[in-house]
Amino acid sequence: MDSSLEKFQAERQRLTDLALEHGTQTTKRFFNLDTAAYRDGALSKRTKELLGLVGSVVLRCDDCINYHLVNCVEAGYSKEELVEAMDVSLIVGGSITIPHVRRAFGKLDELGQL
Amino acid sequence: MDSSLEKFQAERQRLTDLALEHGTQTTKRFFNLDTAAYRDGALSKRTKELLGLVGSVVLRCDDCINYHLVNCVEAGYSKEELVEAMDVSLIVGGSITIPHVRRAFGKLDELGQL
Amino acid sequence: MDSSLEKFQAERQRLTDLALEHGTQTTKRFFNLDTAAYRDGALSKRTKELLGLVGSVVLRCDDCINYHLVNCVEAGYSKEELVEAMDVSLIVGGSITIPHVRRAFGKLDELGQL
Amino acid sequence: MDSSLEKFQAERQRLTDLALEHGTQTTKRFFNLDTAAYRDGALSKRTKELLGLVGSVVLRCDDCINYHLVNCVEAGYSKEELVEAMDVSLIVGGSITIPHVRRAFGKLDELGQL
Amino acid sequence: MDSSLEKFQAERQRLTDLALEHGTQTTKRFFNLDTAAYRDGALSKRTKELLGLVGSVVLRCDDCINYHLVNCVEAGYSKEELVEAMDVSLIVGGSITIPHVRRAFGKLDELGQL
Amino acid sequence: MDSSLEKFQAERQRLTDLALEHGTQTTKRFFNLDTAAYRDGALSKRTKELLGLVGSVVLRCDDCINYHLVNCVEAGYSKEELVEAMDVSLIVGGSITIPHVRRAFGKLDELGQL
Repeated sequence: MDSSLEKFQAERQRLTDLALEHGTQTTKRFFNLDTAAYRDGALSKRTKELLGLVGSVVLRCDDCINYHLVNCVEAGYSKEELVEAMDVSLIVGGSITIPHVRRAFGKLDELGQL
Repeated sequence: MDSSLEKFQAERQRLTDLALEHGTQTTKRFFNLDTAAYRDGALSKRTKELLGLVGSVVLRCDDCINYHLVNCVEAGYSKEELVEAMDVSLIVGGSITIPHVRRAFGKLDELGQL
Repeated sequence: MDSSLEKFQAERQRLTDLALEHGTQTTKRFFNLDTAAYRDGALSKRTKELLGLVGSVVLRCDDCINYHLVNCVEAGYSKEELVEAMDVSLIVGGSITIPHVRRAFGKLDELGQL
Repeated sequence: MDSSLEKFQAERQRLTDLALEHGTQTTKRFFNLDTAAYRDGALSKRTKELLGLVGSVVLRCDDCINYHLVNCVEAGYSKEELVEAMDVSLIVGGSITIPHVRRAFGKLDELGQL
Repeated sequence: MDSSLEKFQAERQRLTDLALEHGTQTTKRFFNLDTAAYRDGALSKRTKELLGLVGSVVLRCDDCINYHLVNCVEAGYSKEELVEAMDVSLIVGGSITIPHVRRAFGKLDELGQL
Repeated sequence: MDSSLEKFQAERQRLTDLALEHGTQTTKRFFNLDTAAYRDGALSKRTKELLGLVGSVVLRCDDCINYHLVNCVEAGYSKEELVEAMDVSLIVGGSITIPHVRRAFGKLDELGQL
């Protein structure tokens, strides 16, 4: 895994630790629920990660895209599948998502998927 | 299929016909591309419809939710699967999506899925 | 309380009941967390309702605005205070929020606050 | 002018009057500034109305779209020009704007422009 | 006050000066109105800053969050109060706001509030 | 042209190349359609670039703003015209767009337009 991604993940962990240490019961319950929503159920965790990726692209959040992209790669999605999920996002969300889609291709490249 | 849905679909068709009759080449190509993005490919049409549903909920568009919900039901998703896809959307998009999620449950009820 | 508001609240309750009956554990936990976030704590429920109102206006959700507006009126906010909270929302969110702010004034009128 | 549009405009006026009567100095100044931003300047009012239309479509506000669409028709834009402005909006904002674009075509039809 | 915040504020001031020097009467009036909306009135400036914070989190603007967070700390809000305001924002805006909430915790840490 | 802009454009080109090399037919058709939407037609390319700028500001995408700002400057818009287009965007989109408008003034300065 590339070092820029490692730095991103270390900083995210540091800030998450701050949020969980200083947050309220509500903060913690929401963070837990966020994790729980992606667990295997009627839909697999694998499918839900792809749903999370699409939600992140259309809402245009780079951090969220990176997070779900890494999880999707770990879940074994092929480049072709990830590109088609981004296509749906691109059509739904329009050209305003292009900078994020472009950076997602860059991230896939860093992850050795292109 | 219930009559309120039929009315919604007839009005949508009427307006789509207006758009395609009076639109430019760009308008038509975008409408076509919107259809093409959901075709079977590396990901199945069935999976892409679920992605479209999540994109529609987090961006809070009732018409889009109804459209993909009907397609998802036709694609054979169970109530449990659709609810879990809406859960991911609800967590990603927050309580501001609740009115749309609530109406999606109402629509699933009209569609005889609850 | 006016009858259009009563109808709105009855329909919302019917759909919420559907969501809670057919939703997953995650659906229910999110709905509960949504309620919990507005309870008295370091900030009062009263203050949090005003925060909810601003969040609803800038994100442009009429159902959410109506919900928090009713709660704010019940919490004893004066017309002047509510208008100033909407002013902040209007400046933050811009003229695209005007149709919602306009309807909020209409709702305040229905609630006998103008 | 069709009666559904007249009703829409009368209700909007009623609510605007409520907002201006009960609003603060800030509310009024923002409403005035909103009017001022579209006046002739380095860019013509006519051009600014088209800018307002695009802003309204990509932010997906039907009331705002209708308002600017009427002003654009009064400013003498042809059907072809309005459709191309909506094309830019459609590409920028994606398929999530389609329901609004569709209704804009319906409104252009009501206005006798198709 | 930490130096990264000082740099952020100096750059913001430089750009604001450019905007006010080269902007129109409308630009300046909007900037003034933005300041005026947070002044003491029926609601205190202190309360309005908290409203501004919530608006900034749910609309996911880091610069705006930092700005209101600094003002809220100066207005004397406790860590517990700020966290609860962010909880409301987190629930309203969903997990897509988490990267911003995380960075807000980082900023509170820099400000010596954790 | 300043070097920070050159770097931004080189990186964007690198990522666009990745997207077009590894994207699907849908990806490529959308990128082409995005280009086509700004071509001379009933409205000039020049006018459409201004529409693209407004869409980019109200949707708050710095990369998109920079792209259209450069194109608008090349199309010969004066500082006064660009500022008025940003005024419309600022009023439509509210103070949440201010950080982007501020950076747009910074970019205009880099481009030698102020």
